[in-house]
Amino acid sequence: MQPTAASFAELAAQLADIGRHCYAQGWVLGTSGNFSAVVSRDPLRLAITTSGVDKGLLTAGQIVEIDGDGNVVAGSGRPSAEASLHLTIAEVRHAGAVLHTHSIWSTILSDATAAAGLAIEAYEMLKGLDGVGTHEHREWLPILDNTQDWRAAAPRVESLLNEQPNAHGFLIRRHGLYTWGKDLAEAKRQVEILEFLLEVMGRKRGMTWQP
Amino acid sequence: MQPTAASFAELAAQLADIGRHCYAQGWVLGTSGNFSAVVSRDPLRLAITTSGVDKGLLTAGQIVEIDGDGNVVAGSGRPSAEASLHLTIAEVRHAGAVLHTHSIWSTILSDATAAAGLAIEAYEMLKGLDGVGTHEHREWLPILDNTQDWRAAAPRVESLLNEQPNAHGFLIRRHGLYTWGKDLAEAKRQVEILEFLLEVMGRKRGMTWQP
Amino acid sequence: MQPTAASFAELAAQLADIGRHCYAQGWVLGTSGNFSAVVSRDPLRLAITTSGVDKGLLTAGQIVEIDGDGNVVAGSGRPSAEASLHLTIAEVRHAGAVLHTHSIWSTILSDATAAAGLAIEAYEMLKGLDGVGTHEHREWLPILDNTQDWRAAAPRVESLLNEQPNAHGFLIRRHGLYTWGKDLAEAKRQVEILEFLLEVMGRKRGMTWQP
Amino acid sequence: MQPTAASFAELAAQLADIGRHCYAQGWVLGTSGNFSAVVSRDPLRLAITTSGVDKGLLTAGQIVEIDGDGNVVAGSGRPSAEASLHLTIAEVRHAGAVLHTHSIWSTILSDATAAAGLAIEAYEMLKGLDGVGTHEHREWLPILDNTQDWRAAAPRVESLLNEQPNAHGFLIRRHGLYTWGKDLAEAKRQVEILEFLLEVMGRKRGMTWQP
Repeated sequence: MQPTAASFAELAAQLADIGRHCYAQGWVLGTSGNFSAVVSRDPLRLAITTSGVDKGLLTAGQIVEIDGDGNVVAGSGRPSAEASLHLTIAEVRHAGAVLHTHSIWSTILSDATAAAGLAIEAYEMLKGLDGVGTHEHREWLPILDNTQDWRAAAPRVESLLNEQPNAHGFLIRRHGLYTWGKDLAEAKRQVEILEFLLEVMGRKRGMTWQP
Repeated sequence: MQPTAASFAELAAQLADIGRHCYAQGWVLGTSGNFSAVVSRDPLRLAITTSGVDKGLLTAGQIVEIDGDGNVVAGSGRPSAEASLHLTIAEVRHAGAVLHTHSIWSTILSDATAAAGLAIEAYEMLKGLDGVGTHEHREWLPILDNTQDWRAAAPRVESLLNEQPNAHGFLIRRHGLYTWGKDLAEAKRQVEILEFLLEVMGRKRGMTWQP
Repeated sequence: MQPTAASFAELAAQLADIGRHCYAQGWVLGTSGNFSAVVSRDPLRLAITTSGVDKGLLTAGQIVEIDGDGNVVAGSGRPSAEASLHLTIAEVRHAGAVLHTHSIWSTILSDATAAAGLAIEAYEMLKGLDGVGTHEHREWLPILDNTQDWRAAAPRVESLLNEQPNAHGFLIRRHGLYTWGKDLAEAKRQVEILEFLLEVMGRKRGMTWQP
Repeated sequence: MQPTAASFAELAAQLADIGRHCYAQGWVLGTSGNFSAVVSRDPLRLAITTSGVDKGLLTAGQIVEIDGDGNVVAGSGRPSAEASLHLTIAEVRHAGAVLHTHSIWSTILSDATAAAGLAIEAYEMLKGLDGVGTHEHREWLPILDNTQDWRAAAPRVESLLNEQPNAHGFLIRRHGLYTWGKDLAEAKRQVEILEFLLEVMGRKRGMTWQP
């Protein structure tokens, strides 16, 4: 994956568009969710949403630029408390954009199994994930336990990403979904693919009656 | 919580926006729901929606100002029959805004248990509630029986609010959700948080099949 | 109930608005559904949607005026095949507007019982129905068998409406919902109330798991 | 059925409209789905969506014209990998337009039975399908196994279409729905009818509790 060549201002505008889109889909209600894109790779700089903003009304002015330690270097506001997760993913996965949603189905399914992850297998829609060329694919979405200290948890996330090099995202228990892409368009596509498949997995678990 | 410093006209316009937004989400169909904001604290004055209006078409002209006894002091129209509930909440909780929705899930879940309330626990989304800083939180939403005489029921509601000082809202059985905030933005955020969590709680109860 | 005093042109424009609104709600997909309003009472004249039009794109030009025998007296196009149902309801119930939707939940619930109707009881939302002043109300929605000859079935419908003078609507099995009102605003409100309650009744039937 | 007389440019604009509409309905998330319309019958030429585009942002410039062998003859971009399916349907069914959606319910229901198809019977909504004049109709939607080589599978699809001359569409297992029509308006109507009925069939399978 290659980082995008867009400027901070361009990325901030695109992040605001994607944030309002995800809100309209019902995936980031009530100030939940956070989104980032890589402004530069060396040194690492991210454009990232600030904390506590209504994604239905998200503007480019609510995006800040942070460095690799999470310090704000442009814009004003407090970056998301999960900024260290975004930085870790951007580094380990060489991602150009990281999106995090709090949908109904990711919340429920992250909690529906005692296993360390959720398998999604043999759906045509899986072909929308980067590098997947056939429906004969088994996607394993790891599930992490939730925490309020993602800075301390960064090594755990880094290990997980290294142990599961084929994972296109992960779930946090009773919390939501993280996915990423080489740029914002790919990350947006992967959010839609995974949210669709989580809805399929959730709704089929509700079918108990045979006609 | 501090009341807002906005004028009646400003609050009426904001209430109309929020009403149309809640309608678009499917939470106040068929003239259901009512919304208020504090115009002044001493004496207590509320801007509140009038009775029987279509929230999908809500305008500022359909908002009236009432005093602490529920009498209209500005605007025309009959205030909501539940105005006394809004007044009680504004006083006891020092709320700047009170929102009441009639969603599918609040209607169902208010009726799904014989208990006096519904527990929602350990979800990240709970952090969107005022003063909650971790997902390790147990929100207890009390459930009140429904009535058509909220003026007579005001002492019962006042007792409940005093007995449950940590509750961020309550349900009325087969009726809907009440929540509030220091201002309209916070109240809107809490409606979204609670409606989201009620949908999660409702949908997970529909999952009976294990793959 | 009193018929409205609006002209055919005004009613046609309002019917088009309501049709597009119901389409956006998912209640009249694929050219399904039909809507009417009384232009004059004596002689009886209805403005009614024509057959086979896409309600998402409904225009006033796709509404015709018919007389009490179902003959077109203004506008061009073939009136809905269910025009005789609209005429019967307008006469027997003295309705000013009649709305018919084909929603998911009305389709399923009309078929979920062998009984001659569906009871909906003790919900606050019932107060949105004409003349209902308390949630302590039991609405009985009769269910009719479907047919392709509504002209022949008109006496059956007339009997049903006379036998059930308190019903605010009825279901047709595997087909949908009919409701009405003294004018289009009331009929629209009642569609929303009944569709909401049908969704509540349908979704609660899916809750099998107790936490 | 007769092919439409519209030009490639007109059809490309109409396909873009329909693509964005289907995206808004949630039927073609994450670049899934593909749509075509017949530009000429002899020789056969199709306007068809290109591969990997976001249907929420679909423009006429993302539509190409292909010949009967699937070669691009106008516009730029790679035609959908399922172009051979569109060509086969256009030929065998004399269809003027072919639409393919990846909805939640078509994905689930295509996988909910071991049978070679899904029966949908006795719903009024079936009358929206071409040539169906009564609800007393049994639609049999064949289910094909999925593949990544639709060119090789074309004879299998052609046989199926010939063996099931009354089918208005078919499902591909864990993949989605294909339907068609004499023109785009009819094909759009049939997508809505079939998606509605699939949602009804899926949701009724979730109703396990009797009040």
